[in-house]
Amino acid sequence: MEKIAVGIIGATGMVGQNYIQLLSGHPWFEVRHVAASSASAGKPYMEAVDGRWLMRTPVPHRLRKLKVADANDTGTADGCRLIFSAVDADKALVRNLETKYAQQGFAVVSNNSAHRLTPDVPMVVPEVNWEHIGLIDGQREKRTWQEGLIAVKPNCSVQSYVTPLYALKEAGFPVETAVIATLQAVSGAGFPGPASLQMIDNVIPFIPGEEEKSEEEPLRIFGSFADGKIEPDDSMKISAHCNRVPVIDGHMACVNMKFKGQKPAAQEIVEIWERFVGKPQKLDLPSAPRPPIVYREEPDRPQPRMDRNAGNGMAVTVGRLRPCPVFDYRFVGLSHNTNRGAAGGAILTAELLKAQGYI
Amino acid sequence: MEKIAVGIIGATGMVGQNYIQLLSGHPWFEVRHVAASSASAGKPYMEAVDGRWLMRTPVPHRLRKLKVADANDTGTADGCRLIFSAVDADKALVRNLETKYAQQGFAVVSNNSAHRLTPDVPMVVPEVNWEHIGLIDGQREKRTWQEGLIAVKPNCSVQSYVTPLYALKEAGFPVETAVIATLQAVSGAGFPGPASLQMIDNVIPFIPGEEEKSEEEPLRIFGSFADGKIEPDDSMKISAHCNRVPVIDGHMACVNMKFKGQKPAAQEIVEIWERFVGKPQKLDLPSAPRPPIVYREEPDRPQPRMDRNAGNGMAVTVGRLRPCPVFDYRFVGLSHNTNRGAAGGAILTAELLKAQGYI
Amino acid sequence: MEKIAVGIIGATGMVGQNYIQLLSGHPWFEVRHVAASSASAGKPYMEAVDGRWLMRTPVPHRLRKLKVADANDTGTADGCRLIFSAVDADKALVRNLETKYAQQGFAVVSNNSAHRLTPDVPMVVPEVNWEHIGLIDGQREKRTWQEGLIAVKPNCSVQSYVTPLYALKEAGFPVETAVIATLQAVSGAGFPGPASLQMIDNVIPFIPGEEEKSEEEPLRIFGSFADGKIEPDDSMKISAHCNRVPVIDGHMACVNMKFKGQKPAAQEIVEIWERFVGKPQKLDLPSAPRPPIVYREEPDRPQPRMDRNAGNGMAVTVGRLRPCPVFDYRFVGLSHNTNRGAAGGAILTAELLKAQGYI
Amino acid sequence: MEKIAVGIIGATGMVGQNYIQLLSGHPWFEVRHVAASSASAGKPYMEAVDGRWLMRTPVPHRLRKLKVADANDTGTADGCRLIFSAVDADKALVRNLETKYAQQGFAVVSNNSAHRLTPDVPMVVPEVNWEHIGLIDGQREKRTWQEGLIAVKPNCSVQSYVTPLYALKEAGFPVETAVIATLQAVSGAGFPGPASLQMIDNVIPFIPGEEEKSEEEPLRIFGSFADGKIEPDDSMKISAHCNRVPVIDGHMACVNMKFKGQKPAAQEIVEIWERFVGKPQKLDLPSAPRPPIVYREEPDRPQPRMDRNAGNGMAVTVGRLRPCPVFDYRFVGLSHNTNRGAAGGAILTAELLKAQGYI
Repeated sequence: MEKIAVGIIGATGMVGQNYIQLLSGHPWFEVRHVAASSASAGKPYMEAVDGRWLMRTPVPHRLRKLKVADANDTGTADGCRLIFSAVDADKALVRNLETKYAQQGFAVVSNNSAHRLTPDVPMVVPEVNWEHIGLIDGQREKRTWQEGLIAVKPNCSVQSYVTPLYALKEAGFPVETAVIATLQAVSGAGFPGPASLQMIDNVIPFIPGEEEKSEEEPLRIFGSFADGKIEPDDSMKISAHCNRVPVIDGHMACVNMKFKGQKPAAQEIVEIWERFVGKPQKLDLPSAPRPPIVYREEPDRPQPRMDRNAGNGMAVTVGRLRPCPVFDYRFVGLSHNTNRGAAGGAILTAELLKAQGYI
Repeated sequence: MEKIAVGIIGATGMVGQNYIQLLSGHPWFEVRHVAASSASAGKPYMEAVDGRWLMRTPVPHRLRKLKVADANDTGTADGCRLIFSAVDADKALVRNLETKYAQQGFAVVSNNSAHRLTPDVPMVVPEVNWEHIGLIDGQREKRTWQEGLIAVKPNCSVQSYVTPLYALKEAGFPVETAVIATLQAVSGAGFPGPASLQMIDNVIPFIPGEEEKSEEEPLRIFGSFADGKIEPDDSMKISAHCNRVPVIDGHMACVNMKFKGQKPAAQEIVEIWERFVGKPQKLDLPSAPRPPIVYREEPDRPQPRMDRNAGNGMAVTVGRLRPCPVFDYRFVGLSHNTNRGAAGGAILTAELLKAQGYI
Repeated sequence: MEKIAVGIIGATGMVGQNYIQLLSGHPWFEVRHVAASSASAGKPYMEAVDGRWLMRTPVPHRLRKLKVADANDTGTADGCRLIFSAVDADKALVRNLETKYAQQGFAVVSNNSAHRLTPDVPMVVPEVNWEHIGLIDGQREKRTWQEGLIAVKPNCSVQSYVTPLYALKEAGFPVETAVIATLQAVSGAGFPGPASLQMIDNVIPFIPGEEEKSEEEPLRIFGSFADGKIEPDDSMKISAHCNRVPVIDGHMACVNMKFKGQKPAAQEIVEIWERFVGKPQKLDLPSAPRPPIVYREEPDRPQPRMDRNAGNGMAVTVGRLRPCPVFDYRFVGLSHNTNRGAAGGAILTAELLKAQGYI
Repeated sequence: MEKIAVGIIGATGMVGQNYIQLLSGHPWFEVRHVAASSASAGKPYMEAVDGRWLMRTPVPHRLRKLKVADANDTGTADGCRLIFSAVDADKALVRNLETKYAQQGFAVVSNNSAHRLTPDVPMVVPEVNWEHIGLIDGQREKRTWQEGLIAVKPNCSVQSYVTPLYALKEAGFPVETAVIATLQAVSGAGFPGPASLQMIDNVIPFIPGEEEKSEEEPLRIFGSFADGKIEPDDSMKISAHCNRVPVIDGHMACVNMKFKGQKPAAQEIVEIWERFVGKPQKLDLPSAPRPPIVYREEPDRPQPRMDRNAGNGMAVTVGRLRPCPVFDYRFVGLSHNTNRGAAGGAILTAELLKAQGYI
């Protein structure tokens, strides 16, 4: 099978670099095009990221001399079928840019939050709401796109609790209320992100815009897809307090939850999590973690440095399930914010789109 | 006025050292006696802490050659009126030891949790439940102690939310439910505490025994004192998730709260906190922070490294008061765990006992 | 005595803030003027540093509403006698700006490196080469300045070894060769400085321009002042390797040294350091640390977090003096890079200039 | 080919765990036996390391139920051909224990320092002094061992400079003098090692015993093997200052070096390093890194977190080669202290012994 040609826009930033690392050796996709701001345009990729390459493995040889294109010039991506957008800019600009690529016939899968509230754009966690990709049919019809499409992934902070809560819902135990406190890694802010002067021997109890996303995006992800649109699950209420902690990678969430109806026994919850498989696992997608949810029995897990790489950084690790004096139960969830929570999650979404015939 | 002679048992550990640092230059108390385990007994204090002195200022000259006594030999403390207990050992042993000192006529103020649930022992946050020291009258009567007494301070984790919640209660707005996540400093575990291998680039979502203390102790502190005993405030429910973070000093708490009755406006809450003064401030006790609660308007405060030293490490700093989608409000509280939360809190309690005539 | 009116240019940056903190309550100097880039000009100081105030104590009340002037407009500083320059900009621009202030009659004491190699500008470590301020006589004569002057302080990295080496030289034991490795705090890079993504669980073995300064500036500081000029001490050779480590404050240096002539006994070296007093101590200047050099006997000191505040952050702490298999001896030195190494060092220089009649 | 049965003594500690992780899937060796102190003896391995498993990948399934033997009972290892010793105890005890295993016919490869100075025991860096394994012939003859043997690896701190210096020596440019400062990771101290209270926002300029090993072991490694014994290379002098820094893994060394004779050009040095291959590469040993030395051109590399995993944690990364004002050149070296510097280095040595017929 010939690989699908892929372009990355915003290719020189941290998420863009992560795409390049994760797609190296991917069985379906091959990076053939890298684009960034006009400041980098024209330079070989190696030179454009010089001194700013943050991945542990070096820049793949094949890409070192690839000339960086200007991301605003969509025509340079010709020959690609799929565009991963890791652009970090003003939302209105990003929204327009991604729309422009889709208009030209590219399938756009984006990490940016610009299109997360666009009604006909699916915001996908493949294990949870894979059916939302059905929105693309209406998207194409309304916008008269033949092959173009836009799909997005949610904010990195929600990954550590959305899948565990969904597994319970799917098993007949929907959660009504969740009070959450996150402890988020510095890489979630991109590069440079918080200064070391701010993070050494310190914690910052605030991340601009993060609490709103952490509270609202899950309602849309859990929403029902009918009549070509998403009806958010307003029956669930989430309160999220987001903290930045001196950790490189791995977002953690302390979750207190109350069920809508009867609560399952603790042992049943663990079994539901351990048994859970989602669409990516059923479709055997290349980046699908097996299992998608890892439960740790130890009293002090998950921990970011120890557990972030579970399932190649694509699984969610949960632990410490125990009764809550105020609600029914509480637990701790953890996911890798730059793998599962950023480039890896978008790649899995693209694999889903390919497997379902949208790409 | 002649200073009151003070002994410290458990004087070589981290909390013991903190007593020595904080009492250096104290206007009322003077350290005349240091005791520790039999392994240290007989050595000059300087030698006994050699290589384990963790304070920033050096061992006070006056104490360097003071011979360390065996803490089990209560007779060596003769001449002291007040004993601060920073002993870290099996609870039953500590309970017996502290009782033995009180029997001999010493006023014992303890950091250890051994006596926190003893019915006739007051567990005191001087700004909150100073009246609980009235328990000592019954304690002395029942145990036929003339001058001896035992008073304890609560766990360090509760200091960052107990006083703010109490200020609201005192103003007529009692809280019914609080869901809390703490981010606690490594010094809270004493020395050595968590290994650097565990804390660099990491967070540990578990502290043995801490969640129980964080949930139960406030109910007793908020309890009513009548008929010579404490009736815990069972109308309040607390859920606490306790995390260890790579911070040297300063325990932080993310608090979600629901009021029993009508909720005040946010601005009113801030004013209640800023106006609040407790008994230590009214009595003008030497270690009383003025004000006891500091409210920071900045969106990203309090932060441990920036705010732990507010009020010489004795004040609670709060910030980020805002509505909660699930409960009424949420906020962030912070206090210095080894000052306010350990030696400093006990010294303030001793000052209160002195001012009220118990010492 | 009326206090001397002081202006700070570059007042909103980290070093500027440190000036404001350190000068609060200074017995001789009073901040009456703050200036910064045109972007901040016109705002109240409190607003200009909003969200970027990095000091532990709050902005002094007196300065909160003080309007920030444009640093390029020297006329706004009228009424001040002394200008501390904490400007961080292109060297040529800074050189011109500082010269312009001095031309207008201000005494300029600078942290910037712009004028460190200007032949008639003294680069001063007050304990070491206080006599170099004599350069100002020629500076004024040549430039026809009546009251204006420029004096600078050296790079923060040299403070942890220059004074210990000088004390030995003064005692008759000049060092011929020093091979040094520094471990420098992140605050030395100003704000934001290194990203937390770069410093957590990491070390960076490179600081642009730092090794050159660390090797060359000491030769000028140790130079002789005669015939109105400085003759650098070219008989000493220094090799410095500069590393950035995840420490907030405190630059450490591992020093290997070879004496020019006979080497003293180790005990003699310690005595020389402990006995050492410099001109600031003899003049009893307000910011002079007493003693200027602290020797720690413990095998594992100095350490940045434990020792950086020695002498209110103005002393140098040394330890681990021992034979070197290659040279004569080796030791570890430590100084606080933003107190002694930046604002504090410049304030001490200004105090020296005042005491010697230049201000 | 049937795999060689391997036993690990000291299997529950951090280095023991690292053996288990690194040997999982090894093409030649298979762990069949785990032994530890009597406190762990009799427990399944999974239970014995409960709460102390520090590796990122879980305990291999095959070993979870393997019963831990008492390391003092050498008979329990019957059936194994090779014993890796990761015992951490009193040197005399370890020396006796390892000798006892060798007497019983086991090939013992050790991380412990106990036998590093035993004249007939080779201390091996396979890329450097592989010929020293010839000592085993005399060892067996003198001790009348048929199949038993003892070989050891040097201290973890020397790995980041010994191979680069050897490559230069081999190319005809022996180094006469090296002045070194190391910045060493906390994992080098084993678990628990330094407390987080000591390492957050701090550096410790002292590691007991480390400087002596860092200075003396290279002389023996560079020694000549003739007449059945090692003659240390006393023509080289090393001064090493060893610092502990808040880094999880990766020991770094800042090296200043002076050549015995003529110095090569800088470009020649880089070429020598990049061209260098040692015996393990020539023998194509399974754990041999290819290349053994990685040179990074970037001005700020190597860095521990970015470069410690080069060559699967078995390569040495060097960078910043530049002239030294005091000696000829200086550079920075980095190696992974628990892979290359501990278990990985010992496994490579065992592979060498196997390939050369000693196992």
